[in-house]
Amino acid sequence: MHRTYSMRQTRMPTASQVENPPPPLSTTKTSRWLGKGGFGHAFRKNAAGAFGPDLARKLAQLVKMEKNVMRSLELVSKERMETAQQLSIWGENCDEDVSDVTDKLGVLLYEVGELEDLYVDRYDQYRVTIKSIRNIEASVQPSRDRKQKITDEIAKLKYKDPNSPRIVVLEQELVRAEAESLVAEAQLSNITREKLKAAFSYQFDALREHCEKVAIIAGYGKHLLDLIDDTAVTPGETRQAYDGYDASKAIIKDCEGALADWVSSKAVVKSELSTRSRTLSQRHRENVHKQREGVDLSNQDQAMRGDRDSWVPAGQHATYHVVEDGEEGASTVDGEARGRDEERVTVVPA
Amino acid sequence: MHRTYSMRQTRMPTASQVENPPPPLSTTKTSRWLGKGGFGHAFRKNAAGAFGPDLARKLAQLVKMEKNVMRSLELVSKERMETAQQLSIWGENCDEDVSDVTDKLGVLLYEVGELEDLYVDRYDQYRVTIKSIRNIEASVQPSRDRKQKITDEIAKLKYKDPNSPRIVVLEQELVRAEAESLVAEAQLSNITREKLKAAFSYQFDALREHCEKVAIIAGYGKHLLDLIDDTAVTPGETRQAYDGYDASKAIIKDCEGALADWVSSKAVVKSELSTRSRTLSQRHRENVHKQREGVDLSNQDQAMRGDRDSWVPAGQHATYHVVEDGEEGASTVDGEARGRDEERVTVVPA
Repeated sequence: MHRTYSMRQTRMPTASQVENPPPPLSTTKTSRWLGKGGFGHAFRKNAAGAFGPDLARKLAQLVKMEKNVMRSLELVSKERMETAQQLSIWGENCDEDVSDVTDKLGVLLYEVGELEDLYVDRYDQYRVTIKSIRNIEASVQPSRDRKQKITDEIAKLKYKDPNSPRIVVLEQELVRAEAESLVAEAQLSNITREKLKAAFSYQFDALREHCEKVAIIAGYGKHLLDLIDDTAVTPGETRQAYDGYDASKAIIKDCEGALADWVSSKAVVKSELSTRSRTLSQRHRENVHKQREGVDLSNQDQAMRGDRDSWVPAGQHATYHVVEDGEEGASTVDGEARGRDEERVTVVPA
Repeated sequence: MHRTYSMRQTRMPTASQVENPPPPLSTTKTSRWLGKGGFGHAFRKNAAGAFGPDLARKLAQLVKMEKNVMRSLELVSKERMETAQQLSIWGENCDEDVSDVTDKLGVLLYEVGELEDLYVDRYDQYRVTIKSIRNIEASVQPSRDRKQKITDEIAKLKYKDPNSPRIVVLEQELVRAEAESLVAEAQLSNITREKLKAAFSYQFDALREHCEKVAIIAGYGKHLLDLIDDTAVTPGETRQAYDGYDASKAIIKDCEGALADWVSSKAVVKSELSTRSRTLSQRHRENVHKQREGVDLSNQDQAMRGDRDSWVPAGQHATYHVVEDGEEGASTVDGEARGRDEERVTVVPA
């Protein structure tokens, strides 16, 4: 953890790195065409947030950047499946044992590619949920703007024409705008938290499932390698006939079974909290509950004073309603519609 | 496992898919600029193996395709780190708890990106090992060609001029060429197996370590999410002050500790073989050992008959020697030299 709770800390080698020192830097890190990531990715990242309300700008950029991550992940998945096929094609002309094992390794690597493909789909679900936070942010901006505009107008009038009858009208309008804004801000706070939790729960669950499954495949891959007879032959000596077809097929079947049976309740990689973390988290949760019992509603009552009609229930809150609809619908329809919806929302935000 | 031991089988949903049905297809799968993977990747894949000896053609293509996989993986890693930063930048303007948790989530996601980066380096090590098989394949081709050429010439002479004294000379030459070829083929067989096992052991070990570590991070990420207070507030109500800074920092520290302590001997994802697989693998191994005890060397003796001088020891076997040197050196020098070396070997193979 290099960029960590303290950004100034230098990184210590891990126990695993001490056991197996890391290899030299890979060749892909030098000399590359068209810079890193390509034109499309750079364009998408930089253009996001250039339009649309201030409040949603940073999150709009994040959403676009997540799309880049997805496209790159998808490329990895596709290329991994292709290399799996190529490995099998190469092995076909080799001796029987090499041919069989490379073919079966190809099956395993292809499966890794397919799992990556599935992970991309689930990553999109996470991204769609983050988008719904962006949408509520975008919808709260007009109510903030309106409140600010009225406040400015009153100040201007009080300076120019302190006895104007418009001041009273504007002040009433301001009370209404403040009430609307209070609702909007509460919605923003609630939805941000709810969706943030949902999005990252989804992301981490998907990541954990993906990782555990790929680790299972890696284990069976190593079993397959044992079938190759790597004792050296002397020139002219022929290798014996290969009899591992059944064994390799059985290994693949075992792997298939292990993957098909995996459920999150069977996850074996644990992330245990230390006593200290557990105590601190527990104390935090208790504090939240304690405060929740005596909620301070004075602020809310104050804001509504004298102008009950200005209170807009959530259901009638135009911008919020539209965005919520658009988003919830979008997450269930097919990919293309979702893509279109996104363009519309970004360029002409509600 | 769709493309599996039987390519005709359709895929059953896994237990995990039944528990959580997969989401709709991701948006990245439709409408894309410049086709899938971009120009550079397509060029690299298709150009590989267009030059160079037949024997090494398929493997040369695989090596190039693996480079594509690496570049794409690297892009994912870089983009994941960028999104981690952007998440933290967005969170900065939110409420205290959201701000703290998104910042810490950023730390975790950045770490995932760094692990992916390390995995790319280790993937390169696998690829370099596969390259050494390609090199021995390329070096064996000339000796096959030479044997074929002499055989053709003898056949031609016997037809045109059956009493030519050159036939005897050529026949002696053929015996020498056959001996050289026998050595080359044995080297090919030995090195292919040895390197194939080494390459994939390395690949699977790296994959397993990467996956288990990322799964650990995902687990701690979920602990972090618990710190966000997502109970709904009513309009005007203020949330209590956030007191989770110590807890979130402790969680990150726990995660850091878990990652630093991970060693392959502590890997928890097991890939157990069923009794059937174990029996079959065991039987295969026993057969290999049995046959190994009584090696049939008659073939080897026959080939050397009458022409002991033609036997070329491995050390003096020109092409094989050059390639072995080039490869072994290449795997330890820095990335750029390795890249250059690769170009040379592909275009003008030894």
